[in-house]
Amino acid sequence: MTHLAARMAEIEAFHVMDILARARALEAQGRDVVHMEIGEPDFPTPDAVVEAGIAALRAGHTHYTPSLGLPALRQAIAASYPAACRPDPAAVIVTPGSSGALVLAFGVLINPGDEVLMADPGYPCNRHFVRMFEGRACLIPVGADTSYQLTAGLIRRHWSPRTRAVLISSPSNPTGTLVPDAELAAIVAAVRELGGVLIVDEIYHGLTYGVEAGTALRHSPDVFVVNSFSKFYGMTGWRVGWLVAPPAYVDAIDRLAQNIFLATSTPAQHAALAVFQPAVLAELERRRAEFEARRDTLLPALRGLGFGIPVVPQGAFYLYADCSDLTSDSEQFARELLEQAGVAITPGRDFGVHAPARHVRFSYATTRSRLEEGVARIAAFLGR
Amino acid sequence: MTHLAARMAEIEAFHVMDILARARALEAQGRDVVHMEIGEPDFPTPDAVVEAGIAALRAGHTHYTPSLGLPALRQAIAASYPAACRPDPAAVIVTPGSSGALVLAFGVLINPGDEVLMADPGYPCNRHFVRMFEGRACLIPVGADTSYQLTAGLIRRHWSPRTRAVLISSPSNPTGTLVPDAELAAIVAAVRELGGVLIVDEIYHGLTYGVEAGTALRHSPDVFVVNSFSKFYGMTGWRVGWLVAPPAYVDAIDRLAQNIFLATSTPAQHAALAVFQPAVLAELERRRAEFEARRDTLLPALRGLGFGIPVVPQGAFYLYADCSDLTSDSEQFARELLEQAGVAITPGRDFGVHAPARHVRFSYATTRSRLEEGVARIAAFLGR
Repeated sequence: MTHLAARMAEIEAFHVMDILARARALEAQGRDVVHMEIGEPDFPTPDAVVEAGIAALRAGHTHYTPSLGLPALRQAIAASYPAACRPDPAAVIVTPGSSGALVLAFGVLINPGDEVLMADPGYPCNRHFVRMFEGRACLIPVGADTSYQLTAGLIRRHWSPRTRAVLISSPSNPTGTLVPDAELAAIVAAVRELGGVLIVDEIYHGLTYGVEAGTALRHSPDVFVVNSFSKFYGMTGWRVGWLVAPPAYVDAIDRLAQNIFLATSTPAQHAALAVFQPAVLAELERRRAEFEARRDTLLPALRGLGFGIPVVPQGAFYLYADCSDLTSDSEQFARELLEQAGVAITPGRDFGVHAPARHVRFSYATTRSRLEEGVARIAAFLGR
Repeated sequence: MTHLAARMAEIEAFHVMDILARARALEAQGRDVVHMEIGEPDFPTPDAVVEAGIAALRAGHTHYTPSLGLPALRQAIAASYPAACRPDPAAVIVTPGSSGALVLAFGVLINPGDEVLMADPGYPCNRHFVRMFEGRACLIPVGADTSYQLTAGLIRRHWSPRTRAVLISSPSNPTGTLVPDAELAAIVAAVRELGGVLIVDEIYHGLTYGVEAGTALRHSPDVFVVNSFSKFYGMTGWRVGWLVAPPAYVDAIDRLAQNIFLATSTPAQHAALAVFQPAVLAELERRRAEFEARRDTLLPALRGLGFGIPVVPQGAFYLYADCSDLTSDSEQFARELLEQAGVAITPGRDFGVHAPARHVRFSYATTRSRLEEGVARIAAFLGR
């Protein structure tokens, strides 16, 4: 007999895991599957970063670091920001992935019953972090008219006496869209005026196309900025990210981090130090350009098949597509597409409650030739 | 202006960090400090484990694993238990250190207001995990009469309608003492009868002297067992531990782990697979014997100086000593010992509210010659 905490009734699995598990089962039977469901870059960690990890291991760097991270890494992260908005390294906290950063931010901010405004569709973990701390995620429906992002106006309209914080993600998972810079400034001002705290997820910074995503720190030193070495830097499995916090919160964050993490993986932190080398950055730029080329391959092809993608996503590696001209049930559509055509995609259900049945997410974290194969299979599946 | 969540008023820093920081500052000035404050083995990760980590990196194992861990590691952990109480690998969850295991266990169990019984003195994070989930840690004062451990009798006496779970740690940090096997059986039975859940921290298993610590799984498959590759296996900085959970909780744990961790560090998981090799286990046995020899050096020496250590600790690498014949303020004593004699120890305050001013913790995670040097300095400090 189990006695689950009430929160667990609201903390959901990633439904994409069922798709992935079924795809793996089909592959085990000899079927070929095009993976457009996975939210992880297909590129390996850059060689120089792997070598830095190996060198750290050979040097015996296997003991705990301070809970806020290796001082050299905190300095290197700080130095990676533009001079005009560079944080004090003391305000940079190394975390076990951006997941760890979000746990720390919500942990020091959210009291039971506090509300956090966030966009729907959005990254599913975000609402669950808030629930974990007995807060309430207020999912604000967003659409193409605001590039699937919150605006200062939406924030003002949905603010309540219980609202404590606002979370924005730019570029967004699942939509790949950015908050335009002027809107970001307006959001910073609105949240400040309303007396709340702004948390900005910048996990996909670096992976932008035709535009540079500027950090929210340019608009205020009083925001919480979450980032990671996972996506742009290609270090998913190492589990190392960071949080830039307003300095007044650092002591509390340190206390929470000491207690719940002790510290981030030491070899991973040493490896991450290597990402800032010019040769690595050049390799990452080649990868970024490849992601852009993939977007430019996949986007028109999907539109041509009848998927609605009204806003051209300028970041991450996702296309969030309206499939309502093709199906009334995105989950069934995704299941059938996998079973009948061997293409794995993520139904909208993972990303919130705002019209999930009308949406699917395509990830382009696979090669252009596999994307083209996937598009051909979808076309055949649709009888085109 | 900060708006900290209320929980942060009760989630304290490790006070030993202040001692450590001051020790480092003294060292930076050229002073020599004997470190008896640090809760981390001084041995490096075994070579074969480091090599396995390097091999994993060279093989490109830098992507996410499943959130519950590498299947091969879950199987190897399960196989490390005696056949008679071996868990199903499906019930073994790989976590970012034992910290991650405790977050998952309390996260799926504790509702706001729920109480968790635990021994005072005890590992400070435990009460903070419970507080993080809006539960209440009930610290039960324990002394030499129960080897500084909870008993079935104490659990029954302190049980309340709000009690949800009991946490025991055997061997314990800070006392190094074990729950005797018959008492463990009685505790399992008592908690079951009372309708609660038992969580057993077995992080220091393997590091026992003259006795083997048997897992609580021998008494019931319905306990939560927390363990780690950090201490006995010498992998602190890698951050990999595990949780064995009653099977009915695994689905909820998977959902929580997916959302708050995504997964444990991949290179660390591959490295951990190597600890079960006979040559590594033989090396770990040599280290265990060395810890035992250190205990046998330090314990009589401290007793001879007037520290009260009424129970011979049979595990971990700590001596929890009554210093009330030498001082009425263990914090001031520890500060003066560091400043005047160059010996760093941990005052009782880190471990609870039961007579902290009368106790200090000595760690013997340093060489015997350094321990002897430390003892000589303490003797001189005390004017012996």
